[in-house]
Amino acid sequence: MLTLFHSPLSSASRFIRLILGEYGITAQLIEEHEWARRHEFLALNPAGHVPVLLDEHEVPLSGAFVIYEYLDETHGSLRQENKFFPENPLGRAEVRRLNDWFLNKLETEATRHIVRERIYKREMPLAIGGGAPNSQILRNARTNIPPHMNYLNWLCASRDWLVDSELSYADLAAAAAISVLDFLGEIDWEPIPAAKDWYMRIKSRPSFRSLLTDRVRGIVASPHYTDLDF
Amino acid sequence: MLTLFHSPLSSASRFIRLILGEYGITAQLIEEHEWARRHEFLALNPAGHVPVLLDEHEVPLSGAFVIYEYLDETHGSLRQENKFFPENPLGRAEVRRLNDWFLNKLETEATRHIVRERIYKREMPLAIGGGAPNSQILRNARTNIPPHMNYLNWLCASRDWLVDSELSYADLAAAAAISVLDFLGEIDWEPIPAAKDWYMRIKSRPSFRSLLTDRVRGIVASPHYTDLDF
Repeated sequence: MLTLFHSPLSSASRFIRLILGEYGITAQLIEEHEWARRHEFLALNPAGHVPVLLDEHEVPLSGAFVIYEYLDETHGSLRQENKFFPENPLGRAEVRRLNDWFLNKLETEATRHIVRERIYKREMPLAIGGGAPNSQILRNARTNIPPHMNYLNWLCASRDWLVDSELSYADLAAAAAISVLDFLGEIDWEPIPAAKDWYMRIKSRPSFRSLLTDRVRGIVASPHYTDLDF
Repeated sequence: MLTLFHSPLSSASRFIRLILGEYGITAQLIEEHEWARRHEFLALNPAGHVPVLLDEHEVPLSGAFVIYEYLDETHGSLRQENKFFPENPLGRAEVRRLNDWFLNKLETEATRHIVRERIYKREMPLAIGGGAPNSQILRNARTNIPPHMNYLNWLCASRDWLVDSELSYADLAAAAAISVLDFLGEIDWEPIPAAKDWYMRIKSRPSFRSLLTDRVRGIVASPHYTDLDF
């Protein structure tokens, strides 16, 4: 059985959980606080980040970009029903570009800071940066969300799915990233109807279910978070 | 003909130039200052980062991770002489992990800050952050270099090349990243003989030549930078 070291509010972890769900792979989930820098976890991944997937032989695969290419090579592209990459190299390039956009760019500009200020700092010891949220950091991060959501809305309005007419890894990556912000009630859906329609469609997939039932200590999800038709 | 928008002191740009060199692909190089946020460049890549490769039909491919997978799919893995990925998925995962390590982690923790403080800030207008280097930022970034070099040395001491017994994309990515720091004289090679031996071997490859003849305005490369046997 595979083991996934993850964090419930990490976009990259959610992305891998969605892929495992789509492939019907059961994995043991182990929750990891990156900020705790647990010795045994650093031995698996010296970079110290989730997600880390242990394969059947306990070989660690570190980072969402490594893991999804690996899962695609071992479970995905070979089977017709699990194709989340288009056939042509330019289409695959577009999938990889959007994966990077939502898992790195959105994460670095907004999500990571909001999660850290609102959630992690309450649990972190003072000595390593715990404490009250910094409202200036929160404000800056929040300013960065609407441009990303407008971009997503534009993509959704011009295509069935984010790349092409078929669901791809880019949809799973974007939805994973958006779901963290939506869980925290940070998204105003009203001005972005095409993105909302896209998100409702992807949220209804069975692979999404385990994300919707996540509980994070001390946090109540935004009211519509689990609504499939919000 | 392909066109590559690059920056001489960007590890990711150098990585793609090395791959183009290994494949014997001639591309028109256009130097781009990310900080200038040139309108025409942002239209190609809204993320605003180099490298961006225009394919034969002027389709833009953005970001080193997108470009190298694309070049591998279109020029690499099909041909025996251009194989920079191992056969097995776990080996490929290790290549991707190390690419991320050197192009993202080392870049974020050290290289980006050193290049910005020492080089870019001299050319940037004051209004967008130009001016004298911040010595505290430089000091912090420099502190982060030795752990990366020790890790590289450990990898080089235990394997012929970074992954396996064959040269792979991981060697090209690491060498690209290291070459920026070496150009700026930021690496102390004395305590890391295995890394030094590896770097001399990879620096001797014809693909490396164009990197060694780069000129950056106002900067003299470190004395041994172009020495193949330093």
